[in-house]
Parts: sequence; C-alpha cells; structure tokens
Amino acid sequence: MKALGVAVVGTGFIGPVHVEAVRRLGHRVVGILGSSPEKSRVAADQLGLEKGYASLAGVLADDAVQVVHLASPNVLHFPQCRQVLAAGKHVVCEKPLAMTTAESAELVKLAVASPVVAAVNYNVRFYPLVLEARERVRAGGVGRVFHVSGSYLQDWLLYPTDFNWRVRAEDGGGLRAFADIGTHWIDTVCFITGLEVEAVFADLQTVHPTRQQPTGGGETFTASANRDRRAAVEVPVATEDAGSLLLRFRGGAKGSLTVSQVTAGRKNCLRFDIAGAEASLVWDSEEPNALHIGYRTKPNERLIRDPALMTASVTPFANYPGGHAEGFPDTFKQLYRAVYADVTNGRSESPLYATFADGHREVQLCEAILRSHREEKWVTV
Amino acid sequence: MKALGVAVVGTGFIGPVHVEAVRRLGHRVVGILGSSPEKSRVAADQLGLEKGYASLAGVLADDAVQVVHLASPNVLHFPQCRQVLAAGKHVVCEKPLAMTTAESAELVKLAVASPVVAAVNYNVRFYPLVLEARERVRAGGVGRVFHVSGSYLQDWLLYPTDFNWRVRAEDGGGLRAFADIGTHWIDTVCFITGLEVEAVFADLQTVHPTRQQPTGGGETFTASANRDRRAAVEVPVATEDAGSLLLRFRGGAKGSLTVSQVTAGRKNCLRFDIAGAEASLVWDSEEPNALHIGYRTKPNERLIRDPALMTASVTPFANYPGGHAEGFPDTFKQLYRAVYADVTNGRSESPLYATFADGHREVQLCEAILRSHREEKWVTV
Amino acid sequence: MKALGVAVVGTGFIGPVHVEAVRRLGHRVVGILGSSPEKSRVAADQLGLEKGYASLAGVLADDAVQVVHLASPNVLHFPQCRQVLAAGKHVVCEKPLAMTTAESAELVKLAVASPVVAAVNYNVRFYPLVLEARERVRAGGVGRVFHVSGSYLQDWLLYPTDFNWRVRAEDGGGLRAFADIGTHWIDTVCFITGLEVEAVFADLQTVHPTRQQPTGGGETFTASANRDRRAAVEVPVATEDAGSLLLRFRGGAKGSLTVSQVTAGRKNCLRFDIAGAEASLVWDSEEPNALHIGYRTKPNERLIRDPALMTASVTPFANYPGGHAEGFPDTFKQLYRAVYADVTNGRSESPLYATFADGHREVQLCEAILRSHREEKWVTV
Amino acid sequence: MKALGVAVVGTGFIGPVHVEAVRRLGHRVVGILGSSPEKSRVAADQLGLEKGYASLAGVLADDAVQVVHLASPNVLHFPQCRQVLAAGKHVVCEKPLAMTTAESAELVKLAVASPVVAAVNYNVRFYPLVLEARERVRAGGVGRVFHVSGSYLQDWLLYPTDFNWRVRAEDGGGLRAFADIGTHWIDTVCFITGLEVEAVFADLQTVHPTRQQPTGGGETFTASANRDRRAAVEVPVATEDAGSLLLRFRGGAKGSLTVSQVTAGRKNCLRFDIAGAEASLVWDSEEPNALHIGYRTKPNERLIRDPALMTASVTPFANYPGGHAEGFPDTFKQLYRAVYADVTNGRSESPLYATFADGHREVQLCEAILRSHREEKWVTV
Ligand SMILES: NC(=O)C1=CN([C@@H]2O[C@H](COP(=O)(O)OP(=O)(O)OC[C@H]3O[C@@H](n4cnc5c(N)ncnc54)[C@H](O)[C@@H]3O)[C@@H](O)[C@H]2O)C=CC1
Ligand SMILES: NC(=O)C1=CN([C@@H]2O[C@H](COP(=O)(O)OP(=O)(O)OC[C@H]3O[C@@H](n4cnc5c(N)ncnc54)[C@H](O)[C@@H]3O)[C@@H](O)[C@H]2O)C=CC1
Ligand SMILES: NC(=O)C1=CN([C@@H]2O[C@H](COP(=O)(O)OP(=O)(O)OC[C@H]3O[C@@H](n4cnc5c(N)ncnc54)[C@H](O)[C@@H]3O)[C@@H](O)[C@H]2O)C=CC1
Ligand SMILES: NC(=O)C1=CN([C@@H]2O[C@H](COP(=O)(O)OP(=O)(O)OC[C@H]3O[C@@H](n4cnc5c(N)ncnc54)[C@H](O)[C@@H]3O)[C@@H](O)[C@H]2O)C=CC1
Repeated sequence: MKALGVAVVGTGFIGPVHVEAVRRLGHRVVGILGSSPEKSRVAADQLGLEKGYASLAGVLADDAVQVVHLASPNVLHFPQCRQVLAAGKHVVCEKPLAMTTAESAELVKLAVASPVVAAVNYNVRFYPLVLEARERVRAGGVGRVFHVSGSYLQDWLLYPTDFNWRVRAEDGGGLRAFADIGTHWIDTVCFITGLEVEAVFADLQTVHPTRQQPTGGGETFTASANRDRRAAVEVPVATEDAGSLLLRFRGGAKGSLTVSQVTAGRKNCLRFDIAGAEASLVWDSEEPNALHIGYRTKPNERLIRDPALMTASVTPFANYPGGHAEGFPDTFKQLYRAVYADVTNGRSESPLYATFADGHREVQLCEAILRSHREEKWVTV
Repeated sequence: MKALGVAVVGTGFIGPVHVEAVRRLGHRVVGILGSSPEKSRVAADQLGLEKGYASLAGVLADDAVQVVHLASPNVLHFPQCRQVLAAGKHVVCEKPLAMTTAESAELVKLAVASPVVAAVNYNVRFYPLVLEARERVRAGGVGRVFHVSGSYLQDWLLYPTDFNWRVRAEDGGGLRAFADIGTHWIDTVCFITGLEVEAVFADLQTVHPTRQQPTGGGETFTASANRDRRAAVEVPVATEDAGSLLLRFRGGAKGSLTVSQVTAGRKNCLRFDIAGAEASLVWDSEEPNALHIGYRTKPNERLIRDPALMTASVTPFANYPGGHAEGFPDTFKQLYRAVYADVTNGRSESPLYATFADGHREVQLCEAILRSHREEKWVTV
Repeated sequence: MKALGVAVVGTGFIGPVHVEAVRRLGHRVVGILGSSPEKSRVAADQLGLEKGYASLAGVLADDAVQVVHLASPNVLHFPQCRQVLAAGKHVVCEKPLAMTTAESAELVKLAVASPVVAAVNYNVRFYPLVLEARERVRAGGVGRVFHVSGSYLQDWLLYPTDFNWRVRAEDGGGLRAFADIGTHWIDTVCFITGLEVEAVFADLQTVHPTRQQPTGGGETFTASANRDRRAAVEVPVATEDAGSLLLRFRGGAKGSLTVSQVTAGRKNCLRFDIAGAEASLVWDSEEPNALHIGYRTKPNERLIRDPALMTASVTPFANYPGGHAEGFPDTFKQLYRAVYADVTNGRSESPLYATFADGHREVQLCEAILRSHREEKWVTV
Repeated sequence: MKALGVAVVGTGFIGPVHVEAVRRLGHRVVGILGSSPEKSRVAADQLGLEKGYASLAGVLADDAVQVVHLASPNVLHFPQCRQVLAAGKHVVCEKPLAMTTAESAELVKLAVASPVVAAVNYNVRFYPLVLEARERVRAGGVGRVFHVSGSYLQDWLLYPTDFNWRVRAEDGGGLRAFADIGTHWIDTVCFITGLEVEAVFADLQTVHPTRQQPTGGGETFTASANRDRRAAVEVPVATEDAGSLLLRFRGGAKGSLTVSQVTAGRKNCLRFDIAGAEASLVWDSEEPNALHIGYRTKPNERLIRDPALMTASVTPFANYPGGHAEGFPDTFKQLYRAVYADVTNGRSESPLYATFADGHREVQLCEAILRSHREEKWVTV
C-alpha cells in the first residue's frame, strides 16, 4: 500500500476519532487544525502529530496533504468544503454536509465538476452488519420491503443544564436532533434498502424551552453524567430535543422514526426494524455485532458479525474473526478504507460511502422535516 | 373465598383462555357458548365443562351464572353486552368494546346505570411489571413524561394466503391492526402514565390488497407457519396490515406507535419506551419478566418480576417468586382477580381493569385514527 | 374429558402451585392437607377447596380422590409415598423422591409392583422448549453430544439471616443446593440428551457456616428481599450453599454444573449449554420462551416458543401461540397433563414425566455427589 | 507525546492486530518480522510498514526500535523473549509466556534483572468494563467473593477437518484449549478479584482424537465456516478440545471454568460470573459493552461502558462516550497505552498489564491442570 497524507480539521469529540482511524489504516496524519493556532498546536502535541496548522489555508498549502477531513461544527462545513474543493484536495466532510440546501446543492455541483473524491462521513453504513444487511436486501432475502421503523435515542442532553453548540440554531441549524442523529438513521436505512424518501410528516418537541449555557463553553459528550453546576446563563432554545417522523418511500413502502436526545439510559442507540415480504432485519448500534433476522416459517436468526458467515463483498470491512467484537471506532476505519481506495484508484461509480449527492439529500430531508412540523402536513421531498 | 359462577361466550382462540384463567382462581366455569349448540357442546366436552349452552338467552337464564365473559368476534360485542347488562349479570367483554362510538357510548351509559361490574378485557395492564411501571410513574420515579414510543408487531398475517375474520371490515371493523392490537398498546401506556390522548395523526398500509380467503373458514393463530394451500377464493382487503401513529397527549407529552401484523419473526411483540425527566421505562411483552429502567446518572436497571422487589400494592398480582417466569395466561388470571374482587365486594372507584368508559375511549381513538389517515391531518379525540 | 379427583399435600410455596395447575386442566382438586387440621382448613378456605383434611389417612380414605400430590418437605416424601401407594392411589411426589437411596429404591419397587401411576415432579422437563430441545437431539439435529455445561443459580439464601427448613440436613437432607435445585438440572439435561451419568466429581461450599434461624419458622421464597430482623437464634449449618460438579456420561460425553443459592441477582436461573457435533443448544429458565441454537456454518438461531415452529409431538404441551409467553406455572399444567393421560389411559411405556426410577437415580446422584466431595475423588454412580 | 519505535514479530492473525493498536496510539511501527525474510517483506508491504526484517537479530540491531512485540507461535516465545531482553529492549510477549515453568521462571528472573518493561499480552484485562469490575471489587461493592464461575467457548475447531498449529503439542504445548484461551479467563478473574489460585482439579476431553492436517498449512481463524476439503493427512491429536476445571482460591473462595473450542455457535465467548456477599458481576466478551451487576435487595443493573458512569481511574481506558461500542481491537490499544506509559515514565509498582510474573503463574497453572487431569486429583499450584 501507498500511504496517503491526511489533515484533520476539528479537535473536539470527533476530530481525534478521524485521526485514530486514518492511522489504523497505515496512512499518515500530517497535522490538525483547531479553532485557533494555539488549539491546533496543543492537539497536535497530544495526538503526536507533526503539524498544528494555523489556518485552513495553511492546510491547503501543504503539499504533504492529499486528503482533508472536516470535523468542525456544522456551520463551517460549507465554507470549508468549498475551500478544500477549490484547492483540489480530496475531502471527507462530517455530516450534515451544509446548513441549507442552497449550500449543499452548490457543493454537489462543485464536487461533480472536480476530479477529487468527496465523501460525507455517514459512518453507520460501515458497521459490517449494516453492510451485510444491505447485501441481504439486494440478494432478495428480505423480499419486497413493506415498512421500516426505528429510533435514534440518546440522553446526553436530558437535563436543562446540558449544553452544546448543537442546541443553538445558528451553530447547528434550525433542526437539531433530526439533523444531528436522525439523518444517520435515514441515510442508513435508505442505504440498506435502496429506498428513496418521497414525503415526510414530522412532529417535534422541545422539552426544555430554555437551557443553562455555561459561560465557559460546552463540549460534546463530556465525561460527566451529572447535572453541571458550572457558571451558566439561561438561554432560550428553539431546536427540538426529540420528535417523531412518518416516512413514505417511493414505490409504496412506509416508515417511522423516533429521535431523542433526552431519553434517559440510551447513550447512542440507533435501531432499525426493516419488515419485508420474506424476512425482517433488526439491528441496534449499541450491540452492533449482532443482526437479528426474523422469519415466519423458521426460527429467527441472530447473525454474529463473523467474516466466515457474511457475504464475500462485505468481508474486507469485517477485520476481526467472529466473536471478536468490533465497534464504533472501526466504522471510521472502514469508511476511510473505501474512500482512500477511490483516492488511490479513482472514483468508483457507486461507492459504498455517502457522496455529496447523498449528503445533499439529507439536507433536503432536514428542510422538509422542519417544514412539515411547522405546517402540520405531509411534505414531498 | 366464595366461588363465583361464570359462563364464557366464544370457543375460538381466546375463549378457552378465559376458561383456564377463571379456573386458576378457583371460580367455577359453569358452561360455554359457541356459534352453534353443537359447537358449544363440543367445546364444553373438550374443556370438561358442565354445560354447552344453546344460546346467549340460555346463558342469561342460568341462575348458576353471575359473570359472563364475551370472547366472540368484535361485531357481536355490542349486542351481546347489551343483553348481558339487561339480564343484570356482570360482564367481561373482549376488546374492542364495540364497532362504533355510537355503540360504545350506549354501552357506557347502560353500564353506569346498572349496578353490575362491567370490564373490557385489556389484559396487558395485568402483567405484573406493567402494574409496577405504573406505580413507579405515580410515585414520581420517572419524572414528567416527555415521550412515549413503541410498537406492536406480529407476523401471523404476513402472507397473502393468511386469512381471519379480522381482515374483513364488516366483521372486525374498518380499522384492523390498530383496533386489534394497537389499542392494547394505547390502553397500556395511558394506564401506566396517566396521560390522555388529545390528538392523533396516522398513516396506514395495506400491503396485501387482496388475500386468499379459505372457503372452509380461518381460525386465529392456527398452528401452522406455512403458506396454506387450502381451497380459497381471492378477496379484496380494505383494512390495514400495518401503520404508524403520532400521538399528542394532554399536557404536552408526545408519542409514536408502529403497528404491524406482517413483520416476519415478531409473534406478539408489544413494546414501549416511556421517556421521562428522571428515568425511562422499557418493556416488551415477549420478555415480560423484565422491566428496563434507564438513567442518565447511574447504571440502567433490569428489574426482574420479583414480588420481593416490587411495590407492595402490585404484589398480589405477581404470584410467583422472582425468576419463576409468568406470562400471557397469567394476565387473564390477574385481570379476573381484580374484576371478581369488585363483583364480590362492590365496584371500586378507580379499578385497575379497563372500564366501559376506557373501552369507549379506545373506540373513539380508532375512529380518529381512521379519519386522520384518510384526511391526512391531525384529528382531535 | 373425564375430570379426575385430586388431593394435594402441602400448603407452602409449591402445594398451591399444584392446585392451580390441576384446575387449569379442568380436573377437580377435592381438598388439601397441611401440617395440622387447622392449617388444612385455612388453606382449603383460601384456595376455595371443598375439604381441608385432618390427616393423610383422611385423604386416602376419600373415594373422591384418585390422585395424590405430595408437596410436603423432603423428609416426608418417603413415608407419605409409601402410604399413598399402599392405598392404591396414583401419586405425584415432589422432588427429591426420598432422603436416601434405601428409601427411594424401596419406593421404586413398590411403584413397579403397583398398578398406579407414580411420578416425580421434575417440572422443568415440561417447558415446551425443553421438550423441543429433546426432540431435536433425538432427531439428530445436534449430532453426537460432546459436552453439557450449565448452572442453577438463586439468591434467596444469600444472607446469613435467610433461613428455611432446607438448610437443616435433618429436614432437607445432607446435600442441599444440589439436591434441591441441582437435581432439576441433571434430570433436565439427561432427559434432553438421553445421556446417563457414569461418575461425578464434586466440590461444595458452605459460605455461611452459621445462620440465623427465626424462632417463628421460615417459609420458602418469602416476599421480602431484605435481611430479616426477626427474633432468631444462630445455628450451625452443614449443608452446602453452593458448589461445582464435574460429570462423566456413559459413552464419553462430559459435563459441568455450578449450583448456588447465594448468587446475588439470580432469582431462579437454570441454564444449560449442550454442545454437539452439529449444533449447540442453550436455554435459560428465566427466559424460557427462547431456545438458542448455535451453528458453525450458518447464523445462530433463536427459536421462540411457537407451536407453529415446533416438532408436532411437542405442540400439545405448548398451548399458547408464539409470542404469548408461557412460564413456570405452565410447566406444572403440562406435567400433570402427561401424568393424568396415563392415569386415564393406562401407564405408557416411556412417559415424558419422571418416573420413580428417574427419581431414584437422582437420589443416587445426590449420595455420589456428597461422597465425592468428602473423599475428593471421582465417584461412579 | 513522544512517539516510540516498535517492531512486531509475527504476521499471522494477531501480529497485525498489534500493529494497528500501536498506530492508534500514535506510536511508530518501524517494521515487522515473519517466518522468512520474504514473508516479512510481504507483510511490511501490505501493512504499509517501512521495514520487513530478515531475522530477529535484525530487529534487535535496529536502533529505531525500542519495543518489541512477540506475536509468534507459543514455542518461540521463550527463545525470542530471551533474545529481546538480552538486547535490552522492552518486550510485549503474547500469551502463554513459555512452554514450561522452567522456561517462564527463567524469563521472570531475566526480566526482574533487566531495567526494561516486560509484559504479557493478556488483553482481556483491558476491556474497560473488566477494569471497572476490578475497581468495584476493590471498592467493596461486591463484598467477599464466594465463587467465580464461567466459560470460554469457541467453535473454530469444531470439525475434525479444522486444523491449526495449536492442536499439535510440540508447537502449542501439551495443554491446548486451557492454555490458549482458558488462561485468559483465569488471568482475568484473578485480576478482577485479587484472588490467587491455590489448587485445581481438571477433566479434559479430546473429542476428535485425529484431525485432518492440511498439507499446505493452516492459519488461525481463517475466514471460512465450512468443512475444508483441502488436501490433508490424518494425524493423531493429544491436546484437549474442551474441558472443565474446578478451582480453589486462597482464602476459601471457589470456582469453576468450562473451556471449549468445539462449541457450535460460540465464536469467542469468555464469560464470568463473580458471586460476592453483596453483589454479583457478569460479563461476556461477545457483548463487552455491558456489565451486569446482580443484587438481592434492589433491581439488577446493566452498566453500559460509559466513561461518565465509571470509576475515574478507569476512564483513560474508555475512549469513546457511552453507547459508542468499543471492542476487541480497542483492548490492545489500551494495553499498550499502559505498557508504553511505563516505557516512557519508568516501571510502575503494580501495573495494570500482566507482568512476566503473572505470565509465569499462568504457565504454572497449565502444568497443574494437565497433571490434575492425568492423576485425577486436586493439584496445588
Ligand atoms: N459521524 C459521526 O458519528 C459524528 C459526527 N459529528 C460531526 O462532527 C462535527 C464536529 O462535532 P464534534 O466533534 O462533536 O464537535 P466538538 O464541538 O466536540 O468539536 C468541534 C471542533 O471544531 C473546532 N473548530 C471550531 N471552529 C473551527 C475552525 N474555524 N476551524 C477549525 N476547527 C474549528 C473546535 O475547536 C472543536 O474542536 C459536527 O459536524 C458533527 O455533526 C460529531 C460526532 C459524531
Ligand atoms: N385480550 C386479548 O389479548 C385478545 C382478545 N381477543 C378478542 O377476543 C375476541 C375473539 O377473538 P378470537 O378468540 O381470536 O377469535 P376466534 O375467531 O378464534 O374465536 C371467536 C369465537 O366466537 C365464536 N362465535 C361466533 N359467533 C358466535 C355467536 N353468535 N355466539 C357465540 N359465539 C360465537 C366462534 O365460534 C369462535 O369460537 C375478539 O373480539 C378479539 O378481539 C382475541 C385474542 C386476544
Ligand atoms: N418442582 C419444583 O419446582 C419445586 C419443588 N419443591 C419441593 O416441594 C416440597 C415442598 O417445598 P415448599 O413448598 O417449597 O416448602 P414449604 O416449606 O413452603 O411448604 C411445605 C409445606 O408442607 C407442609 N407440611 C409439613 N408437614 C406436613 C405434614 N406432616 N403433612 C402435610 N403437610 C405438611 C407445611 O405445612 C408446608 O405448608 C419440597 O420437597 C421441595 O423440594 C419446592 C419448590 C419448587
Ligand atoms: N491475546 C490474544 O487475544 C491472542 C493471542 N494470540 C497469541 O499470539 C501468538 C500467535 O498466534 P496467531 O497470530 O493466532 O498465530 P498465527 O499462526 O496466525 O501466526 C503466527 C505467526 O508467527 C510467524 N512465525 C512463525 N515462525 C516465526 C519466526 N521464527 N519468527 C517470526 N515469526 C514467525 C508465522 O509466520 C505467523 O505469521 C500465539 O502465541 C497466540 O497464543 C493469538 C490470538 C489472540
């Protein structure tokens, strides 16, 4: 293998996850960029990286860097993607791709016009059993899909004292829980089933209309389960803490999704139930090494993530033998495996990773969801 | 204890379940009524009962009978309830209470005017851990309830060759899956949380617009998993096989429910997730001996159905020590325990079992669900 | 069906379980016998039974009684069985059949000589999925059985303040946990696999060498989880609280079993893992409605207790459709279904229920286990 | 951080796992050594490593290398460890440390005499919830430990056509399944409880006395579930496929362990039940993100691997937020995190990782197990 040079933008929760995953593949993370040169330096030092960049321009000017990963807050994705594409470097952008469809549509155009690889970081696709579920649908084992239901539940914003930039519409977008985690679910089930969303009906909820914003800044998933008692100021919150969505897919299948960031005890639980004419598929991200396959005429199955039992095309993405549990960090590795293969060998026609077109569709869905909630009617996407 | 005399109407799937449950309590099942005198006789003989009645009139004329259980098809509930009430006998009616709110409203009036005990057979309330969940909400352990989501999934109508009187609107009602099993879910979560449904939004699905109706009649849950190859005629089906529902409760809580009778591998799976400000409660009828309690600031709990660990008021309804699994048949016993206590001691003010008023509310919900689906808008109940 | 007349001896934990199960089948429980006429009367009244007997002689003189169930403490099984057999009545004796092999051997002889049906109450056999597991082994689906391992764990004797007649060797026998619950496990796995124990090696443990014996008497599985603070006197305890056993079966298979009545959090958890050349079977009495079937070359299965998916000969013992959970009480019903069929139709050659010969073998095992522990060597049975 | 230079010996199943884990930490894997210079080159190329070494001497002569990881077959551990220690480089040796206690005792002496860090790769210790279990025992939450039971089950050697160097006593050692995986279990439970094994009693089983040895060589956990049909020759096998072990710990606690590499459906399932006076702990390596805590007087707990809910000293080893599943590969990262901290900062007094003394104790246990099995008696360790 030929090692690629990679730079990561973002030093918060998920930036270092990118760094670790790139390294597992044997590629070289040249440096990192934070919100200030000082933060970049500190992060580079902590992570043992050569360079802490002073600016995105600095990253883009670095010839050692072929691929740029954007793991910054949502509001920066659009301007930063544009810059990276303009510089002719490959880009992996965190989700959501942009704040508006106007932005994401422009990025799609730019990406298509450019020769580089441009991916959106929908990592859930790369759980080996999610890939396997997709192959089973494609091979006909599930039959015509009737219905998809599920949920994505978390509890890290349960208390009114919990705060993060995501709760502020100006930083995260007007739609919060659905944009932040709900789109992972929709991307995943559409990826597996091949279905396309035709229309949505939403009903959202802000259970805490005000929250305590720490005056010192709040990080994602900070390691304390307790109600903070830090200095804080009460601010109004307009984005949703939870909500439910009905979906209509092209071709007649239907679906439903519940999303919440305020469900006590659920840490990061994405779950789907795909009901087809021959079988159903159930999977839960908190127990990602098992796929449950339901049947009417024979015993249900519990397929363990085991390369020896999975479809051949999936096994490159399941690196450990059965029973040797893989998890969340592994999905980033596998996603970049697919992206870097295209970087090295040229863009493939229908890549496994989410393209900017996929990312754009999710932003469209977000706008439709918000409109449906406000207007209390079905909105066609 | 003083043994009561009981008669059961209905010899299909659920009638004999009533018989068994009544017997467990030490009461006397005097006889049974089927759709013909001959069927009554055969059932009485098989079940070891003294009398196979010739008609409901015969049941009502029998002085040995104080309580009548109606386990006949839905369309008969209204006329039969009316007769039983007119005869001054106590009545336990299977759900749904009636086919229309006009009917159910009349039954409520008749029941209020009568001195007898009148209950609707919402048995799910009587799983010991459902009763326990309710006590925990009432005691404040869950906090303000934000959201209730869940599903009721089965697969016995998965194939177009599956048939039962429930699929025909004229026998089961225009709403099928939601009326048949969805109302169990709504009754259960309202019972637990004390919430009242304010408005619903529904989207229903008939995945098999035609089905093969056996010319010889089709029974409920027949013991074959296979696609039948019996003589049959293709008939159009208007009732829903599956669907999703959004709920708004009075006071601001919201909810969502998915119902299906065509989800492969789910035999009879009622599941709820109740999310509150302090804790969440998760329960699944296929594993009824565990209640999952989610927390943010401490480990989640898995409460086993164990009288030693449950609220004192619930323990009379949990008759076996922890680890000695109870199940579906036990709920009927516990429901009749509560009903017969009122028969013996006089009507209690807020009984645990569902009253006719509760049954009426479920019929109202069914009408609202069907209207919402047809008009594609929120319908206030 | 023709209803049989039944009497139950024992008014503690398990006696009333027998009463309930007999009633479910439509048979008639004529009366009950406790440790005193007064106790018999109270129990008869509470359970709604006609007669509270004054003595076993009274039971045996009652022509209305054809079958006697013995649910008294272990030490009484031998003398009471003998009396029942002498009276020519059918008998269902709780386990263990007797205190010594001398006693149990005599009972076997008496039973063989008598025309009545004589069964030992090893109810675990009658979980529908245990019966199904047996059929699958017999049909060859598991292949040659290599190994059987498992455990039977409880926590009701965890604290030194917990007390029951079982801890006293003179009332329960010199072997406690293994005799009380371990024999259920051995009976179950031998029943399923058809294997016979050839030799055992045991290591036992008394974690509380003294216990607080309440001066007022202590009942089985009393509904309090807490350390009692009742008047009590400290007594030495010689019987084991826990222990482990290695087994050698005739033909080369091996096994291991851990038994404990002091494992916090396990209420009544019998679990086995049967490993064969083609498949393995795992089952847990706390989740009795699922049988886990392990494979090497295809996904593992989770077979739900569903008559539609089970072997035809087992379905009479699985009375509720898939997903409608059955449990512990149902096993008593099914056991008596099998016993009473023989009472009515004559003794069958190889009954599903445990015969006195089976019960005798368990007593032999108990003696071998105790000897092996004391002598620290393999003991052939 | 200062990046260390690392070399890995072994290019089979587990060598590349070491490479990946070292990289995640930001350290530099300089090169790799296989069984031939050619194999080294191929592996270096595939993994994107600079150097494919020609010999261990070459590794040890490389100044860029400070730490050597030995992931070669068991029989090489002793000679290779000796060479690495002699060269004054830090060493991480795969388990078991050596083939005999004579060898392992010598290595302990050499390691003590040397200033380097010397660790044995018992990675199971580094599942975050295993570390947490240990902290909970130490903090008294479990109370005096009465009993430890469990199993380590796999199925990759189920068929007589399965082969690997481990089945040959000369390559893997006379004890196989217990040495290969059983020692992981013993190391883990002793690590958690602080207990020391005093004596063992074993009963082993070779279910396939002959196996088909492929003439072309057989790798570990090859990705085929099927019975191989490759060219092979039938060879006798003396090592055990499965077995059971009784344990006595110093201080009175007891234990039992079942080990098997022929249990269909279990891929890599290490499970323990630790029973203490106050609580019990249950964990399963196939679902490593949950620790089950059993209680008598309150609901059982299911602790999710969540830094926010874990003991502070453990959180550095749990790098992802709750619900973001970690797995088997992560344990190698955390183990090397602990080892490299000592490499950088000097040897700590009681390190979390297994020292050579710990590794020696496991080899002692292996010898005792084999002797006990052969002599059919308790063997003191
Ligand atoms: N795929 C997945 O599973 C996940 C995706 N994400 C996505 O990743 C992005 C980052 O989220 P988190 O890491 O959770 O947030 P965070 O708040 O923990 O980290 C954001 C980082 O961006 C840095 N940043 C801010 N302004 C910057 C600038 N101008 N230039 C460079 N860096 C700047 C901040 O210093 C901070 O380190 C979001 O878009 C989020 O949606 C986050 C978590 C999981
Ligand atoms: N609470 C629960 O969990 C359940 C409730 N049910 C309810 O119980 C009722 C019966 O359902 P199944 O037993 O499943 O149906 P089924 O079709 O198996 O049995 C219905 C029985 O009613 C008898 N019947 C028909 N006409 C009659 C008449 N004129 N007089 C007396 N009996 C007559 C039929 O012969 C048949 O035996 C339904 O209303 C259903 O909604 C059914 C199953 C479960
Ligand atoms: N198969 C199973 O799953 C179970 C079997 N058992 C077995 O059932 C038997 C009874 O156990 P438990 O009900 O738990 O004990 P318990 O102590 O709760 O009840 C024993 C009963 O026997 C009565 N008794 C005492 N002396 C008597 C006499 N001379 N004549 C008639 N009755 C007398 C006592 O009054 C008491 O009601 C034991 O042999 C036990 O091993 C117990 C529980 C479960
Ligand atoms: N901690 C854990 O979880 C695990 C530990 N192990 C241990 O790791 C070791 C290796 O096991 P696997 O990778 O499964 O075996 P393997 O057979 O897959 O690989 C062994 C490797 O050693 C290489 N080798 C042979 N002779 C050599 C020599 N003279 N110099 C350098 N390399 C040589 C072989 O080419 C092969 O690549 C064993 O000691 C095993 O017990 C293995 C798997 C998991």
